[in-house]
Amino acid sequence: MHPKTSAGNFFEDFRLGQMIRHAVPRTVTVGDVSLYTALYGMRFAVQSSDAFAATVGYPRSPVDDLLVFHIVFGKTVPDVSLNAIANLGYAGGRFLKPVYPGDTLHAVSEVIGLKENSNRKTGVVYVRSTGFNQHGEEVLDYVRWVMVRKRDESAPVVEQHVPTLPKALAPAALGTACPRIDTAEWNEALAGSPYRYDDYEVGERIDHVDGMTVEEAEHQIATRLYQNTAKVHFNQHSEGKGRFGRRLIYGGHVISLARALSFNGLANAFHVAAINGGRHVAPLFAGETVFAWSEVLDKQPLPARSDVGALRIRTIATKDKPTTLFPDKTGEDYDPAVILDFDYWVLLPR
Amino acid sequence: MHPKTSAGNFFEDFRLGQMIRHAVPRTVTVGDVSLYTALYGMRFAVQSSDAFAATVGYPRSPVDDLLVFHIVFGKTVPDVSLNAIANLGYAGGRFLKPVYPGDTLHAVSEVIGLKENSNRKTGVVYVRSTGFNQHGEEVLDYVRWVMVRKRDESAPVVEQHVPTLPKALAPAALGTACPRIDTAEWNEALAGSPYRYDDYEVGERIDHVDGMTVEEAEHQIATRLYQNTAKVHFNQHSEGKGRFGRRLIYGGHVISLARALSFNGLANAFHVAAINGGRHVAPLFAGETVFAWSEVLDKQPLPARSDVGALRIRTIATKDKPTTLFPDKTGEDYDPAVILDFDYWVLLPR
Amino acid sequence: MHPKTSAGNFFEDFRLGQMIRHAVPRTVTVGDVSLYTALYGMRFAVQSSDAFAATVGYPRSPVDDLLVFHIVFGKTVPDVSLNAIANLGYAGGRFLKPVYPGDTLHAVSEVIGLKENSNRKTGVVYVRSTGFNQHGEEVLDYVRWVMVRKRDESAPVVEQHVPTLPKALAPAALGTACPRIDTAEWNEALAGSPYRYDDYEVGERIDHVDGMTVEEAEHQIATRLYQNTAKVHFNQHSEGKGRFGRRLIYGGHVISLARALSFNGLANAFHVAAINGGRHVAPLFAGETVFAWSEVLDKQPLPARSDVGALRIRTIATKDKPTTLFPDKTGEDYDPAVILDFDYWVLLPR
Repeated sequence: MHPKTSAGNFFEDFRLGQMIRHAVPRTVTVGDVSLYTALYGMRFAVQSSDAFAATVGYPRSPVDDLLVFHIVFGKTVPDVSLNAIANLGYAGGRFLKPVYPGDTLHAVSEVIGLKENSNRKTGVVYVRSTGFNQHGEEVLDYVRWVMVRKRDESAPVVEQHVPTLPKALAPAALGTACPRIDTAEWNEALAGSPYRYDDYEVGERIDHVDGMTVEEAEHQIATRLYQNTAKVHFNQHSEGKGRFGRRLIYGGHVISLARALSFNGLANAFHVAAINGGRHVAPLFAGETVFAWSEVLDKQPLPARSDVGALRIRTIATKDKPTTLFPDKTGEDYDPAVILDFDYWVLLPR
Repeated sequence: MHPKTSAGNFFEDFRLGQMIRHAVPRTVTVGDVSLYTALYGMRFAVQSSDAFAATVGYPRSPVDDLLVFHIVFGKTVPDVSLNAIANLGYAGGRFLKPVYPGDTLHAVSEVIGLKENSNRKTGVVYVRSTGFNQHGEEVLDYVRWVMVRKRDESAPVVEQHVPTLPKALAPAALGTACPRIDTAEWNEALAGSPYRYDDYEVGERIDHVDGMTVEEAEHQIATRLYQNTAKVHFNQHSEGKGRFGRRLIYGGHVISLARALSFNGLANAFHVAAINGGRHVAPLFAGETVFAWSEVLDKQPLPARSDVGALRIRTIATKDKPTTLFPDKTGEDYDPAVILDFDYWVLLPR
Repeated sequence: MHPKTSAGNFFEDFRLGQMIRHAVPRTVTVGDVSLYTALYGMRFAVQSSDAFAATVGYPRSPVDDLLVFHIVFGKTVPDVSLNAIANLGYAGGRFLKPVYPGDTLHAVSEVIGLKENSNRKTGVVYVRSTGFNQHGEEVLDYVRWVMVRKRDESAPVVEQHVPTLPKALAPAALGTACPRIDTAEWNEALAGSPYRYDDYEVGERIDHVDGMTVEEAEHQIATRLYQNTAKVHFNQHSEGKGRFGRRLIYGGHVISLARALSFNGLANAFHVAAINGGRHVAPLFAGETVFAWSEVLDKQPLPARSDVGALRIRTIATKDKPTTLFPDKTGEDYDPAVILDFDYWVLLPR
């Protein structure tokens, strides 16, 4: 008899170039969209209104980009990060095709880097994960790297490699998931802001003002919606005896909260086109309140497109600290309230 | 550079006759309906079953009237009540057209009254808010008035006016959102009660028996579902330092809980046709248990309709106090357990 | 005037052979499916992906069997168990037809057994409940028995009978809700396990490893989704003064949690074909963590079908105790951590 349960992969189980086809394809529905709205209070008009989306050039409301990200990410967890100690970072994330309710997503990951730590107890695994729809079309890909336990400290590591990762996506890589937008039909009153691409300046900082307190039931409901099985989010019995004494909130939950808060100041930034990088600086726990502010790092037109332009945004999320004074990092040291440092491209109508 | 965030309107920003087109149109879906059921336990057969709805005369289940109300209300918050101290009341609410999953709602408000308070720090703003579907048809309108802070105490108030508001809608104003009901096909066993319009009497009191305890996660999920951005519901970091030390629960959450509880006694009251008035007598907080009782204030046939009749109902909700003894008000003083006094017309089959 | 509220049935209100048509038909939608996923983290590929379901032989993803069970069960509560002290057991549950989003369910129960307890204060009511779709086709039936209060101790009991119940369904009774499965198209990587029917052995035990902590908001949202009105799940004001001092979690919530946890070890067990028996050994409360392990009690081919085989599974759920050591019962005494003992047939591809 084979043992029927999976204990996940340990560091020495991974091989460079290995392709992992992840389990449990997932049909995304309007039910998921409603829950996503209810969990974060998302208000971007393109995703909120079929009528608005149709007016500006989509067939209907696409599924929120980050909901797609979380679902694809969730599929990778049982194979990539079940034995992870830490999710170290993201890079090179591209949204390649819009996802609509009724589409079915599955995911494949390629191991593109392996680096054992000097303690020989852990190592860093780099994967490029790709989400596909039911037609086999790529809808999203991104790199993430995680610190994973070894099952056996003495296990040899066959081949190591640290991949070179882009600091940011180039403007030419953006916009494939965005149909041509009819900017004349973009109703600013309905979208919630008069500020388009041209109204933002590099270096501009925006305090998103509001705070959102997170409850245990909320992050658990969200993380299960994504079929993310990481144990640390759900099991108070074991986490109560662990390092923090509490369940850890899925880092993606913070990203979505920060994105939802960013509506106040970036209401026309209707599409996340790319994730340049992201770091979960500190953990979030239930009962804490998330705030966010953003900085415009760059702005770029898209090649051969006059309808939309891209802002490179860095959003900082904090916990239990309003962002009026833009808490940030000094050198390598972050303000102790910072929990997320997220670098991404958004598209706005011109 | 313009500051990109909105701080909402203060009392002196409003003008009589001003029209405000609210942001973020919203497509209502079966996902929203499921969440609404899950948050309140709603059981009215017309809204619960496409098959039942089709049998009695609807094309399919309409979206619960109060869900429509909350979504329209939510749209008005960023413009009308972001700086509100209190939601003082509702009047003249009419449900004008049924809303079905797939419909997209947006909202417009007209400022119909302004009255500065004698302390000059605040004033009362009266708005008539109207919800529209994607065809531009009115689905709901209602008046609410809120006490709003002034940004600057010395700011002059240009023009003041207190509108005259109806105490109750007239029967002739009811029923436009209700198709002709085939009362012979109305299955009382499936609907959950043998009592139709003719079985109720003016003055009759009904204790709805059950209690429902509210959790933080529940009211936050509900209020975000409505894209209602009022800060007091979500931010424990700031509310913890405020008047109550806690997050306030959206008053509409109490209305929907009371309506759901009222099923036990009013199961055939399938449609809220109008909101005559409503007052949030006291705040509700997480952990508290809501009870409700109702009184039949009036009953009226609808002009030229023999299929349905209207009951004018006053529903009183309490917290942490069963309603066996019908806790009420004496003169202007309410029983301290009362949190809601809600006056509305419902339709029942004859 | 008739009192308009229902106080539910008491033991002496039931009659052998009585048919009860339950209220509130319910259209099941993709919104319900999303909530079900979000509440339990369900990952069975057939129910998760329309594309996977279509590949193996379903027209699209069927609604999770236990979601159907909970909805049908919920309808019976106001008539059968509103005055129940305990839900004593289940038997003879058969899933007869797949349910798809858009189908409308209603339920009928027949009283098949009545036995007064010797204290004359309570009695046991046995009902066979049947769920129907909008075409009047049976989708599920099962027997449950509950201990119900008498309204009046002196009330005579007209006729008593204890029905003979099957210990387990016969293999010939299984599979009617399962279309012919194209096992060659069953993708094990996508389904999440290489283990099919032939890979399991009678007597095999599987520890499902993971734990899931339950929050008040979660079980309330779930139980209201099923329109289950049992008071003990929702009313802290009264339960706080009761036997446990807390709200009781609906037993079906534990069944669904255990089923979701069982994915790790039984990922290809895509269909619950029958419920042989079930016992809620001890109550679960919010804040507690559920674990599960399973034993293969039997395995049987299905008559005239070579596509799927049936495993008879006994799943034990515990609270606040990992299941590494398979906590069980000795004689009639359960390990004090056990909360559920559930016996059911699942189908797997051969």
